[in-house]
Amino acid sequence: MCRTNVSTVVPPRHPTRLDGHQIQHDDARRVGVLHGPKGSSSARDNTSSKARHDSICFPYSEIGGAPALIVSPHHPRFLSLATRERLEKAMRAGIVVPQGLIAHGRGEAFDYILGEETLPAASAATSAAAALLLTAKHPVVSVNGNTAALAGREIVNLSLAISAPIEVNLFHRTRRRERLIAAYLKRLGSEEVLGIGEAASNAIRGIASQRRRTDPRGIGQADVVLIPLEDGDRAEALSRDGKKVIAIDLNPLSRTSRAASVSIVDNVIRAIPALTDAYNKMKKMPRDRLERLASEFDNQRNLAKAIQEMIQYLRGWA
Amino acid sequence: MCRTNVSTVVPPRHPTRLDGHQIQHDDARRVGVLHGPKGSSSARDNTSSKARHDSICFPYSEIGGAPALIVSPHHPRFLSLATRERLEKAMRAGIVVPQGLIAHGRGEAFDYILGEETLPAASAATSAAAALLLTAKHPVVSVNGNTAALAGREIVNLSLAISAPIEVNLFHRTRRRERLIAAYLKRLGSEEVLGIGEAASNAIRGIASQRRRTDPRGIGQADVVLIPLEDGDRAEALSRDGKKVIAIDLNPLSRTSRAASVSIVDNVIRAIPALTDAYNKMKKMPRDRLERLASEFDNQRNLAKAIQEMIQYLRGWA
Ligand SMILES: CC(C)(COP(=O)(O)O)[C@@H](O)C(=O)OP(=O)(O)OC[C@H]1O[C@@H](n2cnc3c(N)ncnc32)[C@H](O)[C@@H]1O
Ligand SMILES: CC(C)(COP(=O)(O)O)[C@@H](O)C(=O)OP(=O)(O)OC[C@H]1O[C@@H](n2cnc3c(N)ncnc32)[C@H](O)[C@@H]1O
Repeated sequence: MCRTNVSTVVPPRHPTRLDGHQIQHDDARRVGVLHGPKGSSSARDNTSSKARHDSICFPYSEIGGAPALIVSPHHPRFLSLATRERLEKAMRAGIVVPQGLIAHGRGEAFDYILGEETLPAASAATSAAAALLLTAKHPVVSVNGNTAALAGREIVNLSLAISAPIEVNLFHRTRRRERLIAAYLKRLGSEEVLGIGEAASNAIRGIASQRRRTDPRGIGQADVVLIPLEDGDRAEALSRDGKKVIAIDLNPLSRTSRAASVSIVDNVIRAIPALTDAYNKMKKMPRDRLERLASEFDNQRNLAKAIQEMIQYLRGWA
Repeated sequence: MCRTNVSTVVPPRHPTRLDGHQIQHDDARRVGVLHGPKGSSSARDNTSSKARHDSICFPYSEIGGAPALIVSPHHPRFLSLATRERLEKAMRAGIVVPQGLIAHGRGEAFDYILGEETLPAASAATSAAAALLLTAKHPVVSVNGNTAALAGREIVNLSLAISAPIEVNLFHRTRRRERLIAAYLKRLGSEEVLGIGEAASNAIRGIASQRRRTDPRGIGQADVVLIPLEDGDRAEALSRDGKKVIAIDLNPLSRTSRAASVSIVDNVIRAIPALTDAYNKMKKMPRDRLERLASEFDNQRNLAKAIQEMIQYLRGWA
């Protein structure tokens, strides 16, 4: 990916403290692409040296003592690079695990071949997800390290908008990380965060290790669970437990995407605010219409549509 | 991705010390897939609980104090998980940068949609690359953190087989990392490693920062440069400098892939040994045939073929 080094440093648009580390909270729902497919007319095609040598910049990764590269916001990959930077800092702060960086890279690649935008299959899934949440008795929002770092503020806004509690649910579970993430979400405005320490006294059947633990006031009693970036085992176990699962996962082939009732194949950064918007817009719909929307949604067919969208994008290159 | 936790720990097959960290050097050229596309008849489809709960295992990531998960070698994603583990350890050892984990994740996703195997387009590029190396005056193998960690031994074997020096060339350049990587490659059998410290006294035109530096005895005088996992700026600058560039990059859409003379769209873990094999097999070919092979290779057309192969794989799922 192209990077460049220029001079001045721009202050983050919505600076948020992340355990002593400065994390950039731009509310970008769209991340630029390096260059577009053949025939693409978008500005994304443009890796002009102007864009790459502009003067309002952020320092790009001071890694292992290597001098920081400074990247211009006009750089076609500015938002993508800023997001990487944010995750790296969140790793240093203990919120994101190293495996979370690898997971992010996987997400990035799938996002490339979606053209890094919210396509029709994701929008359809978002409507079905909003319908599920609007008709749920006990909806719960599950949060892990990557989701907190990438979309902490947006997750808190969603939780408040839909009156669903947030539960921290980690793949690599430690007390320290649970507490760090809960504290971070509270600083972003969450009133309560479930699933911390002893509070996670329930267990999901069919899962070994600490990953099975859930909060009886949260996922334990939930009928609908939103799981961004979940691993396949847990997604499958939650479904087997009779819960409706809404996944957000850029990989339409993952077991999580396959196991969920509704899979939103989109970047969590774009998907969470889109879900909040859809929820707010659909609030006044009659209940029977919402129920029909949710029950008529065919997840496997919609995943096939998401894969078709990726094929479409790749075709533009071949 | 599915993971499981079982009991015993298996010793690495070819243990190598990596700056005090134990890194597994399996010579796997193939990494299993989670589950195959529709109609796939391969064993890869099989995420049986037998496979997931077997008893010969390796400890999977003791991350941020989280208890290690133990993964069976019969686990369908064993090799992929072991590779992640290896990169993580290499990051702790200072060889791989955090951004390298994100880059690896991107590679993983593109590898998924290749079915995690070496497909015809990659094999065609490998033959052209071997022909270029066989007819080169000064071939050089460029190595960064990820390549050293993922295929250090294989890179050293290639360098010896083709009598081309290794030059360390880092995106995130520090003296410490250069030296760590050089020492690691020397432990794996490399006689000399170029590009370290003051030795990198040349500069590639059109590149700012430390990334422009090259060794006059290596890339400085090279006519053919092998660059696994290179960034786009440097790949383009090397080409502009009149060098023939052989890229190994799982992303067929990257600027590196586009800028190279020959792009091998394959995992560096499989591509390096395949290139060594091709070189050895083609050694006796007459020079004019090798020259024709190299000059007739159409990289853009072959990249389109690699993209078609990805589309083919995705179609199996849609
Ligand atoms: C993400 C990770 C490391 C979190 O660990 P922890 O914080 O301990 O709970 C853990 O849950 C994990 O390893 O998950 P998986 O790698 O199995 O699955 C992550 C999925 O999310 C996808 N993904 C990555 N980044 C994004 C993203 N930004 N938006 C949506 N999906 C994403 C990625 O393609 C992959 O399919
Ligand atoms: C890889 C990285 C971090 C190395 O840094 P350093 O060690 O400081 O030189 C740096 O060169 C970088 O950021 O590169 P890019 O991210 O621009 O490009 C890496 C490319 O390699 C691809 N890739 C990742 N893993 C593999 C892999 N295992 N085999 C082949 N290609 C791979 C990935 O898809 C991406 O297109």
